[in-house]
Amino acid sequence: MVIRGFSGLQEAQIGDLTFLANMKYAGLLEKTKASAVIVAQDIEDVAGKNFIKTDNPSLAFSKALLLFVEKHPDPVNGVHPTAMVAEGARLSKDVNIGPYVVIEDGVEIGSATTIGAGTFVGYQTRIGKDCLIYPNVTIREQGVLGDRVIVHSGTVIGSDGFGFVTEGGVHHKIPQIGTVEIHDDVEIGANVTIDRARFDKTIIGAGTKIDNLVQIAHNVRIGRGCIIVSQVGISGSTVIEDYVVLGGQVGVAGHLTVGSGTMVAAQSGVASSIPPKSIFFGSPAQPHMHAKRVNACLKDLPEHVRTIRDLKERIAELEKKMSS
Amino acid sequence: MVIRGFSGLQEAQIGDLTFLANMKYAGLLEKTKASAVIVAQDIEDVAGKNFIKTDNPSLAFSKALLLFVEKHPDPVNGVHPTAMVAEGARLSKDVNIGPYVVIEDGVEIGSATTIGAGTFVGYQTRIGKDCLIYPNVTIREQGVLGDRVIVHSGTVIGSDGFGFVTEGGVHHKIPQIGTVEIHDDVEIGANVTIDRARFDKTIIGAGTKIDNLVQIAHNVRIGRGCIIVSQVGISGSTVIEDYVVLGGQVGVAGHLTVGSGTMVAAQSGVASSIPPKSIFFGSPAQPHMHAKRVNACLKDLPEHVRTIRDLKERIAELEKKMSS
Amino acid sequence: MVIRGFSGLQEAQIGDLTFLANMKYAGLLEKTKASAVIVAQDIEDVAGKNFIKTDNPSLAFSKALLLFVEKHPDPVNGVHPTAMVAEGARLSKDVNIGPYVVIEDGVEIGSATTIGAGTFVGYQTRIGKDCLIYPNVTIREQGVLGDRVIVHSGTVIGSDGFGFVTEGGVHHKIPQIGTVEIHDDVEIGANVTIDRARFDKTIIGAGTKIDNLVQIAHNVRIGRGCIIVSQVGISGSTVIEDYVVLGGQVGVAGHLTVGSGTMVAAQSGVASSIPPKSIFFGSPAQPHMHAKRVNACLKDLPEHVRTIRDLKERIAELEKKMSS
Repeated sequence: MVIRGFSGLQEAQIGDLTFLANMKYAGLLEKTKASAVIVAQDIEDVAGKNFIKTDNPSLAFSKALLLFVEKHPDPVNGVHPTAMVAEGARLSKDVNIGPYVVIEDGVEIGSATTIGAGTFVGYQTRIGKDCLIYPNVTIREQGVLGDRVIVHSGTVIGSDGFGFVTEGGVHHKIPQIGTVEIHDDVEIGANVTIDRARFDKTIIGAGTKIDNLVQIAHNVRIGRGCIIVSQVGISGSTVIEDYVVLGGQVGVAGHLTVGSGTMVAAQSGVASSIPPKSIFFGSPAQPHMHAKRVNACLKDLPEHVRTIRDLKERIAELEKKMSS
Repeated sequence: MVIRGFSGLQEAQIGDLTFLANMKYAGLLEKTKASAVIVAQDIEDVAGKNFIKTDNPSLAFSKALLLFVEKHPDPVNGVHPTAMVAEGARLSKDVNIGPYVVIEDGVEIGSATTIGAGTFVGYQTRIGKDCLIYPNVTIREQGVLGDRVIVHSGTVIGSDGFGFVTEGGVHHKIPQIGTVEIHDDVEIGANVTIDRARFDKTIIGAGTKIDNLVQIAHNVRIGRGCIIVSQVGISGSTVIEDYVVLGGQVGVAGHLTVGSGTMVAAQSGVASSIPPKSIFFGSPAQPHMHAKRVNACLKDLPEHVRTIRDLKERIAELEKKMSS
Repeated sequence: MVIRGFSGLQEAQIGDLTFLANMKYAGLLEKTKASAVIVAQDIEDVAGKNFIKTDNPSLAFSKALLLFVEKHPDPVNGVHPTAMVAEGARLSKDVNIGPYVVIEDGVEIGSATTIGAGTFVGYQTRIGKDCLIYPNVTIREQGVLGDRVIVHSGTVIGSDGFGFVTEGGVHHKIPQIGTVEIHDDVEIGANVTIDRARFDKTIIGAGTKIDNLVQIAHNVRIGRGCIIVSQVGISGSTVIEDYVVLGGQVGVAGHLTVGSGTMVAAQSGVASSIPPKSIFFGSPAQPHMHAKRVNACLKDLPEHVRTIRDLKERIAELEKKMSS
């Protein structure tokens, strides 16, 4: 059996390796044209199909994939002659800096880090080693990125926090002189915005993964290992503790704490702090089980209202009979 | 009668051509200073006003406008000397490539396509003819764009999908080795993000129009002629069939199908598949008529609760009388 | 007493000046290590702490901060040799234009304005004096920016409005030949999108502040001194009057008016016009007090439904007794 490619269960052809992680697709096991399928230990054999059994099919597939993916021709190789690197910047010897990158004074960049074309790195920013910054990213002055950080295109790190003092109808800008600190192994999607702190730091903890178009306001502190899905907005000074999961389009108000291990379902609005290890949803967000009950009642609300009207008539009738 | 300009009904001055498409503004027909108004066939004449009657006033106006708009001095003309075009890239003879554009190896660009300043096109990406890519766009490697595709500034096509396998508290990145395929006549707004597939393709069907700040996750397949309004988010592997309309800020969960011709109202949250030709709204989204009834009842909920309390008292009173 | 730094109440160390604006943090006054605290007039003295009393502690602190902040080495100084400035552009003598900026023909830029690296300014755009345009911004042709305007990175001003006429299943593009006009003292966050008008102008009034990732559609007119929080979306032709506050993730439908001085709470959906000086929330948005009552009832909805069921049984029981 020769494996020549990798694909999903449905699209796989002869010669492909594929995998089954989501039991929703188990029905495809008999139909797939794949030459081999990585499955969980408890999947029963199917006649004529080659299964590789493992505890975590998705992880095993990813690892196999990484071994076989053809290394693409590296688009950057050393410092491109058009990269504008300030004299006072300190780059490790084996960095890759693409065309039209601008690196200001006092910047430090660790070894094996790649900076894509057109990206801007403001003065005194420090970027660790093995980072991958895609094209057209903007990292403002004095930011700090750890090791193995990935930042996708169009993202802005260190823009001014949104802070004003209003006096006599004029919104005076509050200087935003803090920074942003992004710890090791963080991945940040495309067109994300992370504001610098008023003073002090906006912090993204180690191993946290942030999807596209997320907004993180000034002075927010996010813990380790969080998952922040696309289009989430987190308001100023809020603390998201470790291993929190925020579903897509969730909004979190300012000056709150979302406790460690908590999950908030998509489109929820978090208006007050949430204890650890909770599951919340709704706008305003409530404990999962309660919100589910509310939603079920809500769906039948027109029927309940009809019942109320009916009861009202029947009571009026009873009252009439009683008084007569 | 000489027409010297084009404007809206309200702003139009003498010498302007204007049009009436939305009957909400019909009252302005008598007041407009426009020298001529394109109107629908069934609009009655107004004394002293010049009407041009047609089946589709908005379309007719657009066509007239296109004939008269002064061609602006084309900002790019051929390949700008600062454009960094890899040796292995194949550009048609009459492309326009702006300053500081970066085009990597193996890229193909069709005739009469314009690439705005500062845009990045990753290796082996193929862009068709008559496309218009505005400044500061990022198109990652191996993307495919058809003919007459328009991409507005700040948009990122082909960023990595958001996929991780968690083991022992560590989120391992799942390689995203698929691509993005954008068919003919698609228009994509500003600061949109479209992720590349895990493997296989993320697909945007022919003639689909996408507004600003929309998120399209990995492996999403969008059909032909859809309208995706601003700030919509579509989660991974979801299928949006042909001619679907998603209102602003709609969120669609992953692994669902939204049937052909369906409309989803603004801010709705789609948590399960929707059949074709439906109208849905709410979060979670429900059939339009039902959601409307729920919303009407919801608005009066405090009154209904008061009625419930009143009925409770009256029943208690009845029960007391009965038992005595 | 020597002040060497500035910080928040909680993080402040000896030598820092800090302030108390939000009474939520008043408890920190006794614990802070700050050498001095700017407080409101009515704050009582705390033994061993140095207070500076003023009417507006936040504003006073901002002013003090501005006096002491070390001027950072200006990253740009005059017109960088790699800036691509068209011959017909008119720049004031003391502008700062960063590397790889592209400025097209007919552009005018006022004195003391800074344009960050990689930013694109389309033809005939006029930018006033003392503006600060951060790196990687895109300003399309014929835009108008007043004085002291701040635009953060990744923002796109003047992208085409989202307008199509559909005929026979084909969405024909409606030409968007209007412009965007941004008045004095406006600040625009990162990755914002502001579309040009169909004809006429999209307008942002003087002193209005716009947070990150906001969408402003074509022909929208925003008044003076508004606060538009992150991820808000405003649909086409809507009028936002003066001093309106829109909370995070609010959506406003098209062709509406939000009256002067009105506040709309986060995540609300505005589906019809709102009178001046109102407070609205919910989706669809309703007057604040009513929406609060609805939400309170909604939270208890499962209990109300249980009550309805109980009343139904008791009435049936009463009816049975009556008829017997």
